[in-house]
Amino acid sequence: MFHFADRLDAALKTRRTPVLVGLDPRAEMLPETILPRAQQAGIDERAAACRAFCFGVIDAVAPLVGAVKPQAAFFEQLGPPGMGVLGEVVRYARQNGLLVILDAKRNDIGSTAVAYAQGLLGRDGPWGADATTVSPYLGDDSLAPFVEVAVERGAGIFVLVKTSNPGGGAFQDLVADGRPVYRHVAEHVEGLAAQTAGACGYGAVGAVVGATYPAQLAELRAAMPHAFLLVPGYGSQGGTAADVGAAFDARGGGAIINNSRGIIFAFRRGRYAERFGSSRWQEAAETATRDMIEELRAETPAGRLGRE
Amino acid sequence: MFHFADRLDAALKTRRTPVLVGLDPRAEMLPETILPRAQQAGIDERAAACRAFCFGVIDAVAPLVGAVKPQAAFFEQLGPPGMGVLGEVVRYARQNGLLVILDAKRNDIGSTAVAYAQGLLGRDGPWGADATTVSPYLGDDSLAPFVEVAVERGAGIFVLVKTSNPGGGAFQDLVADGRPVYRHVAEHVEGLAAQTAGACGYGAVGAVVGATYPAQLAELRAAMPHAFLLVPGYGSQGGTAADVGAAFDARGGGAIINNSRGIIFAFRRGRYAERFGSSRWQEAAETATRDMIEELRAETPAGRLGRE
Repeated sequence: MFHFADRLDAALKTRRTPVLVGLDPRAEMLPETILPRAQQAGIDERAAACRAFCFGVIDAVAPLVGAVKPQAAFFEQLGPPGMGVLGEVVRYARQNGLLVILDAKRNDIGSTAVAYAQGLLGRDGPWGADATTVSPYLGDDSLAPFVEVAVERGAGIFVLVKTSNPGGGAFQDLVADGRPVYRHVAEHVEGLAAQTAGACGYGAVGAVVGATYPAQLAELRAAMPHAFLLVPGYGSQGGTAADVGAAFDARGGGAIINNSRGIIFAFRRGRYAERFGSSRWQEAAETATRDMIEELRAETPAGRLGRE
Repeated sequence: MFHFADRLDAALKTRRTPVLVGLDPRAEMLPETILPRAQQAGIDERAAACRAFCFGVIDAVAPLVGAVKPQAAFFEQLGPPGMGVLGEVVRYARQNGLLVILDAKRNDIGSTAVAYAQGLLGRDGPWGADATTVSPYLGDDSLAPFVEVAVERGAGIFVLVKTSNPGGGAFQDLVADGRPVYRHVAEHVEGLAAQTAGACGYGAVGAVVGATYPAQLAELRAAMPHAFLLVPGYGSQGGTAADVGAAFDARGGGAIINNSRGIIFAFRRGRYAERFGSSRWQEAAETATRDMIEELRAETPAGRLGRE
């Protein structure tokens, strides 16, 4: 299978879950067993700890989910050594059968956007991601090169439409011609998604829509029937299973629900901390993933995934 | 001097020019002496060629201008080796007395934006840039961490307001509450710029406004009196000295005018190709820089820079 959305759709059905595990290796939150004395650690030591941590999370969740989402910021924060580790993490995730959505929120104009797209997208590229996230502020012609490269390489993009942060509305919710800016972006994304649709009905172009705005999530699911939705904001940011139900199609497909901190740093909070503690952080991540899978199966249409 | 805008203002006055040299090391356009057989070159070879080329451009232009703008996309396109070279190029430019504005157009939400800001901004950080470009789509709370880190570290940011590409208007020009989205962004940027103003009157927060929309450039200069303008689109994209005149304040300050391809690849075009050819690409870059400096001095208020 070559088409990105078809591969993603198949991965979700095989694992029977839309859970996407976000890899946000914040140095100051890593387990002590991985990075003792984080405050004193130099950049190479922190980068090595991020590698060990991400590899460990991948080992824990690869049997359970179809995809992971490394957040480029936490690797870039560690300078060139961090970016080297990012490349290794992408490869390791793929070797473990996972699709990799590199959360980079990149964009630029014209031939510069081509450079980003050629760098980030496709398993044979220098970073090797299956998909990346893209910001739309620069306009339709800034998205076009990403779409072209994605289609050529069997990769995908997720365009920011309605983000999960409290201030996301500052510009996204401005009303122009009777509808918010995010709806204008959504209309453009839907056009690109329809043009690039695979056998599963979804396109190589998807959309980022936050779990923290459930009404808009429902509105945008309807407005973009060909777009896979990448839904951040579940867990730590306050989104619940009830909030994300509207992201799915009738078969429980068409959406991936991201959880970063709630899974990878589960060992730091509540019942997971009590049960596993810092030294058993991998078991905590695995258990938190299983719990989220069960929650979404019980409380959303995702329970139907892969049952047909 | 610690404040970014004060340092930038001083650098422009010392060199008596607002010319900003863009470092876009597109592998397929490098001189043959730097990268023979670009098509066959592996990624490490291309990264090494980018390093040699950028170092050579810096050698040629450091005596003439105050700042350079590496474009992250062309380094990221070469994978981890390319990002290693980006780090070296930033350091080399600073060693040669230049301010470095890393054109990365990054952004994300909350603590992830903090990670980008901490990674990219400040001379003591892992990348060591004096400033970076930031995309505003994610909203006001996504810009705040960049502003905070910039102020702490004597660094700066340039927020995309009105970009130079033909499709830039697709979302930026949508009219909400009687004014375009880019004006809403501009109002927010002006507030941040005023709050962070240095002794020169400009803030740690500036704005990207394209040379290709001269009427909007004049409008936005007036709307953001505390914001340094970073003006792309000069030269290859069609912007002329007449087009950028409105970017300056009455003293010829407050703006930097970027030229990437027109300078670094001058050896490939017209009179520079005839006079210098591929082997003397550094002299071509130097001469193209001198010509642009003279053009702006003759035809814009930048002729007054550093004369008071």
